[in-house]
Amino acid sequence: MSFEIDPRLRRDCHILGRTGDSFVLLMDNALFPWIILVPVTEHSEFHELGQEQQLQLLQQINRVSNFILKEFDVTKINTACIGNIVRQLHIHLIGRHELDACWPGVVWGTEHRRARDMKQVKDIQRQMQRALGEDFTAL
Amino acid sequence: MSFEIDPRLRRDCHILGRTGDSFVLLMDNALFPWIILVPVTEHSEFHELGQEQQLQLLQQINRVSNFILKEFDVTKINTACIGNIVRQLHIHLIGRHELDACWPGVVWGTEHRRARDMKQVKDIQRQMQRALGEDFTAL
Repeated sequence: MSFEIDPRLRRDCHILGRTGDSFVLLMDNALFPWIILVPVTEHSEFHELGQEQQLQLLQQINRVSNFILKEFDVTKINTACIGNIVRQLHIHLIGRHELDACWPGVVWGTEHRRARDMKQVKDIQRQMQRALGEDFTAL
Repeated sequence: MSFEIDPRLRRDCHILGRTGDSFVLLMDNALFPWIILVPVTEHSEFHELGQEQQLQLLQQINRVSNFILKEFDVTKINTACIGNIVRQLHIHLIGRHELDACWPGVVWGTEHRRARDMKQVKDIQRQMQRALGEDFTAL
């Protein structure tokens, strides 16, 4: 299946790699540990996925949520499929902290933003490689 | 297990009933078909649930998402676990439409709000009873 990550996701994020059959993206905003999973599918809604793909995605969500909680100074995860602007199915996994720039509001649409430098991106990619081992392939 | 729905959810929502072991709430905002699932658990994060409860919740999410898409004039669903303010685990399932009051932004934190009258609430409860059959118990 020929599959392209939506150009708006490519513009707003860094591609870290893959876990299972999903692409793992890092939102280009250093204010939040904000990972986006993009499963390889033409469906645009989570509930439209077949059972097998839902279960795989669930595993990936669990894996990346645990990664964020262990590796960053956060107290909880915000998990969401929104897709009002980018219809390609993608799942937001965002580590949140009571002192972060948007707390207790949500991060979508925020003007609080600071670009990540490439060293940070590479560091997070390596962190993920160490933590997820065989379950992660850097790209 | 003694379980109480968080008082802030009770204040902001109408309790429609139960599907599986989750409570089904309707946000008191007539501008959006906005359902909240509250699974009976003490965990506050989706990824902390055991596999069995995650799978049951997945079924409930699929069921209610399909209900919203079939019964309301919406084009997609926004699905999210946020819980920055109310820590009790709850899943938002919101039907969205290109002409709704918040499009394409998210609905959380919006000032666009119109209370539902009790007839609307009862109608939606009956709609859900018809659509979900044995998978729904009105409360």
